[in-house]
Formats: sequence, structure tokens, C-alpha cells
Amino acid sequence: MSSVELVAVGTELLLGQLVDTNSSYVAAALAENGIDCYASHAVGDNRERIAALFREILDRADGAISTGGLGPTVDDLTKEAVADALGLALELDGDALAEIEGFFASIGRTMRENNRKQAYLPVGSVPLPNPHGTAPGFVAIRADGKFVACMPGVPREMKPMLAERLLPWLRSRFNVREGILTRVLHTVNIGESEIDHRIADLFASSENPKIAVLAHDYRCDVKIMAKAASSESARMAIAPLEEELRARLRGHIFGIDAMTLEGAVLAALDERGEPLAVAESRTGGRIAAAITAVPGASRRFLGGIVAYDNAVKQRQLGVPEETIERFGAVSEESALAMARGVRDRLHAQIGLATTGIAGPDGGSAEKPVGTLCVAIADPRGERAWTLHLRGDRAAIQARATTAALGLLWREIKIP
Amino acid sequence: MSSVELVAVGTELLLGQLVDTNSSYVAAALAENGIDCYASHAVGDNRERIAALFREILDRADGAISTGGLGPTVDDLTKEAVADALGLALELDGDALAEIEGFFASIGRTMRENNRKQAYLPVGSVPLPNPHGTAPGFVAIRADGKFVACMPGVPREMKPMLAERLLPWLRSRFNVREGILTRVLHTVNIGESEIDHRIADLFASSENPKIAVLAHDYRCDVKIMAKAASSESARMAIAPLEEELRARLRGHIFGIDAMTLEGAVLAALDERGEPLAVAESRTGGRIAAAITAVPGASRRFLGGIVAYDNAVKQRQLGVPEETIERFGAVSEESALAMARGVRDRLHAQIGLATTGIAGPDGGSAEKPVGTLCVAIADPRGERAWTLHLRGDRAAIQARATTAALGLLWREIKIP
Repeated sequence: MSSVELVAVGTELLLGQLVDTNSSYVAAALAENGIDCYASHAVGDNRERIAALFREILDRADGAISTGGLGPTVDDLTKEAVADALGLALELDGDALAEIEGFFASIGRTMRENNRKQAYLPVGSVPLPNPHGTAPGFVAIRADGKFVACMPGVPREMKPMLAERLLPWLRSRFNVREGILTRVLHTVNIGESEIDHRIADLFASSENPKIAVLAHDYRCDVKIMAKAASSESARMAIAPLEEELRARLRGHIFGIDAMTLEGAVLAALDERGEPLAVAESRTGGRIAAAITAVPGASRRFLGGIVAYDNAVKQRQLGVPEETIERFGAVSEESALAMARGVRDRLHAQIGLATTGIAGPDGGSAEKPVGTLCVAIADPRGERAWTLHLRGDRAAIQARATTAALGLLWREIKIP
Repeated sequence: MSSVELVAVGTELLLGQLVDTNSSYVAAALAENGIDCYASHAVGDNRERIAALFREILDRADGAISTGGLGPTVDDLTKEAVADALGLALELDGDALAEIEGFFASIGRTMRENNRKQAYLPVGSVPLPNPHGTAPGFVAIRADGKFVACMPGVPREMKPMLAERLLPWLRSRFNVREGILTRVLHTVNIGESEIDHRIADLFASSENPKIAVLAHDYRCDVKIMAKAASSESARMAIAPLEEELRARLRGHIFGIDAMTLEGAVLAALDERGEPLAVAESRTGGRIAAAITAVPGASRRFLGGIVAYDNAVKQRQLGVPEETIERFGAVSEESALAMARGVRDRLHAQIGLATTGIAGPDGGSAEKPVGTLCVAIADPRGERAWTLHLRGDRAAIQARATTAALGLLWREIKIP
């Protein structure tokens, strides 16, 4: 058997007022640690129904892991339900009480009486301290060794508790000796089918490490997962495969693991020591918004001009009226003039420009909805591209942003 | 009893590779239609486990509603599991087959053999046609009248099937005679606690129609739900309460139901016949991105200047160096100069500007992280505000965008 099931507690989940993202997060962590999870459930704030669900799960699996329902209010019933389901009494846990008192002291507030309730745990529980809130987690263990682990529903409290407390306990409980190490290679300017084509043989030959390709809007992640007795040997198993993937996807991998495309662009700008300015028509401010989401963006990002109106393209970017009349506002010629204009006027070394048709109206046979022109002007010259993107207005705007950042990254990063 | 439970099918849900948003969507629709839902489950692509789950649910509830697992591949096993659980055979449904053939004809592709599999339904099922894809839905009914309703997992196929086919069937099955009508009033520039304070007595006195307040980043929704025998009488029940709420929240309700804040800003610009230009420092392009997300934005949105660097504020917006030196770039004075500058230079009638500190660095005792200055320059004059926002960098940037749009809406909309 050796498996667990997940439980999200909260009536708001069953009224559709909240999407449960905790279960997906916990499931991913379990998968990475090689612990099987065959089902996930959501149940309302009802003591009998929560208890019945825990009992059913323990008929099938070794344990249940719940999130939510550990707060101080009368609606918070997970702990009482666990006690019912496992036939355990609740008793005041001195450590848990001290922790809650400490939390209130740290935020300078007085602890209320109903927070005392949170320090009661099922007899014999393993406490899971919560430095980020008042609800301590715990693992309650039945006489036969089966267990129910409970964590708070607030993600910023649950996530560190899972990583620092519950996962180590589960790994020891399930005798997980192997570590799983994951390495994600982020690619851009290459489609999922082209990646599949280039690495099909590696898919077939790789069981451990295993490879997976995940497609996002206009970029793909290639994930390598290695199972090994130590993280050192997992790293050694990943290294040659990563090297092979890097060779086959040369020029497309902009970063690994937590790196974002806009972060990679900023790092490349740092390497070159060249500041950037953007002229956005189609992307309407989204490139600037993406780059300024990175802390420290002001280091290399000067700013941009959102030239939605053609008069703004002419006045603020110096795009000649003749260029717009002759080639149209959506043309490589206009995009080049915009890139040149924003580079000159904002005193940047790199100018990036986008112009296109996001729809739903404004398309033509020659330039359908989804047409995107991207141009770059920098010390190495000027160049432009025309792409055809699919989807509704929102998808086209998102893909246009990724496509433009991807082209910029390639142009400034690859020698 | 008279209740249903939900099932989301897909191994990817239990590996944390996908967050299940379908269940929340279906749950909200059930709640609005007065159909009780006491639990929700996710299960992998495993025929035995799916069938066992359906059987358990029918021990407790009147029916199960599933999403996912209706595709053409060998991994898609929901239908087979339903047949197992209910003891029904699968048979070719002529109408379903014709519909799938019609779908392929409409997109100009040839139907493959494995798509024929999708036309097999449990004997006696009520088919739920799918005009947006190849997977027909269905309601399979057990001899005792309990049922399993299955819909595809792709949201754009599932949502119309739920609204147009399954909900009418469920309402008739559960004899739901009453309609539920919902009206959402979207507010801005007012906090949740202030709203609570102003309408507390209405909360207490209103059972039907019922009121709920939902807080988002820097704006709140007030939801009115009325249950009545006809939508006409539901409308009549809502009207006086809506009027009362509008009086108490005067000046804060920017739209109803599907209206967005950026859509309300664009509509207000249309009413005034005044084009807008934005100068963004703190919000880094997010205001432009929000407005250009609305189809037809080009009608009243000329463009903007993302003035991240102070030199850009000076050169592109004409903010005097002296103003920045004397008051700082984050000041009402600088924001006013930016609003004035973008209005003049882009030949707009309304200029909106933001400047502030999004963090994590750059704060001071006088101007902590989260400080936001907003300014507007228009034919009615110039004015500026200083706000203090909370959260991390991403939250501050999102809240700053909403706050600025909310102030702009109020200033151009309210006489």
C-alpha cells in the first residue's frame, strides 16, 4: 500500500468561493519525494463529514494529509474530527501553547482565549510548529500506526511547515531513502514539437533520470528528475543528461529552476552593461510590466513608451508618417523605426519594439489577428521579425510579450 | 439527502502538475442553483479507482459530477469506470458519433479511429452535446435513479456544457423550482471594513436576498443573491436592496456583474470624450497593460510613458530636475509634473501618473516601501494623492495599479 490521500477542509471550497491550490502544492512535493498519492478530497466545515472522510481514507491508505480548519473559530473543526476518527482525546500541548504565546508576543498583540483552543492536540501527536501563524500543525497517530497529518490552510504557513517539518517526518515514516532531485531547463523560441523531435531518443532511453516537457505560452520547460540515494549521486546522474540536452537545445535555454525569462533578460543586460528601453504597441505595457516585476530592474531598465496611438508613434518615437502610410503601423519597418526611436530618445543602448494586431478586430487577409512584428536596435545593428500568434486577445498579448522577450534574450545573450 | 459530489479525473492533478479549477467552477454553479455539494475529489487515470470512488459517492449522495478523462487516448477511462460502477454496458450513440464527425468537418480535419471511441456512452445515458470539442458529455443513470454526470476537463468545453445542458437537467432532476439571480456590485476606493460598517444592518436583516462582501486587491465586490420562483420576481427582490446599497456606497460602485475596473475607466473616458495618457513609474506599465486588455481600448487610450529612470522622467515627461531634487521622485509634486508632462506631450486631455516604492529595497522611514503617489491632470485641474500599500513587491504593484485606476475612475466619472 504505502500511500497517502489529501484532504482540503473548508466550506468555501465547496461553494466555489476559493480554488484549492494547497492540494496541488502538497501533491507535487509528495511526488518529488516518491510518496504515492492516489486521491485528493475537499470537504466542508462539518465535524462528522470530516471524521468520516478520514476514517475512509485510512481504510485505503497509510495516512491522510489535511490543510485548513485549524483556526481559532467555531468553524475550525479539523482537530476535533481527527480526534473522533482516530479515537484519541485532545489534550493541552505545553509546547504548542508556548509557541502560540510567543507568536502573539512577537507581533505585539494580546492572545485571546479562543487561541488557547489551538494548543490542544490529539494525545500522542507529533507537533508541527508554525512560526508564521497561530495554528500549530500535528501528526496524529492511530494505534495501528496509520496517521492523519494536519496543516493550516494559509499557504504561507503551510508551505514552510510542509518542507521543514512534515516532509522529513513522512520520509522517515515511509523509509524513503532515495532523494529526488529536479532540474528544470527553461527554453524559449522553440516549440514543444521541435523539442520532442530533437530529444525523442532521450525520452525513450531515460527512466532514471526521467525527462518531461511542459509547454507554456510560447516557451517550454524541460524537466529532469533523478532518484538516487543521495543528492550528490542524483546530481551526478543529472549532469551528463543535462549536458546532452544543453547541446541539443543550444541557444534556447535561458535559465534553470527558478529563473524567469524577464530575470534572464535582466541578467543578460547586466552582462553586457547595456541599458534597455522598450516601445510597445501590441504588448501595451506588458514587457515593461514583466521586467519591472524583477527586483533591481531599475539597474538596466530605463523605461518605455506605450505607443498605442499612431500619433504617439510619430511624436514620441519619431516614426515617420510616411513609414506608417507606406508599410502600415503593423510592419517590420514601423517596428524598426519604433525601436530606433525609443533607443535614441531614452538614451538607451538597446531599443526593443512590438507592433501587431491583438484582435478581436483589426485583422486583414494580409495581416490577420495574431500578427506580431518585433524589432531590436542596439550597438550591433537593427533587425526585425514577423510572427503569427494564436489564441484570443489575452493569449495573443501574453504570447507576444514572451516572444519579444525571448527574441531580445537571444539577441543580447547568444554571441 | 438530495446532494451531489464532484470528481476531477487526471493523474496530473495528483502529481501537482495542474491545479483543478473546474471543481470550484462547478461548485459555484451548483451553489447558485441551490443544489447541495458536500464533497469534492480528485482521482488519477485508473479505471478501478475511479469506479470505486463513484460507487462510494452514490452510497452517500444522489449523484456524482465528474470532469476530465473523456478524451480519445488510452489514458481516458472515466466512461469505462462509470459503466463499471453503475453496471451498464457501453454502446455506440449515433447522435454522439454524428456530432463528433460534424466537429471534425467544421475544423476541416479527418476524424481518427480513436475518436469513434468517444461516441460510446453507457446504455440509457442522457447525452450532453459538446459543440466546442470532440468529447461528448453524458449523464449515466443507475437502476435506482442515482446518476453520474460526466463532462470533459477542458474548461472552455466544460463551462458551456454545464450551463446549457447539465444545469437544466440537474434543476429538473432535483425539482429546483426556484431560480437564483445574482447581482454583483463592484466597488473601489473603499475598504472591506468600511463597507461592513456601512451595511451591517442590511447583512443582519437580509436572508433572501442575501448579501456577501468579497475583498480583492484594493477593491471589493458586494454580491446580492435572490432566490425566487421566477427570474422576474428575483429581479424585483434584488431591486430595492440594490438601490439601498447604491445609496450607501455612492461614489464607489464602478460597475456590475462582468464589468472590470479598466472597462469602467474606458467607458467613463468614452462618456467624457476625453483621451487618456499615462506616466508610470511605480506601476511599470501595468496600468497601460490593464487598459489595453479591453477590446477597443485604442478608442480612448493614446499610450503612455514608463518612466522608470529619473532621466526619462525629466526628458520624456519634462519633470524639472529641481522638483525631483527638492521633493524626491516619489512625491506628489513629481507625480503631478509627470501627469502634466504626459498629458501635454501625448496631446491627451487626461494625464494619469504613478510614482512610488515597490520594494523590497528603496524604502525609508519617511517614505516606506509601499508608498504610492498618484496624480491626475485634466481639463478640470490637477490633483494628487499619497497612499500606503501593503504586501510584497508583486502585491504592491498590483494594488498600486488598482488604486490608480480607481482614483482615475472616480475623478472622471463622479460629477
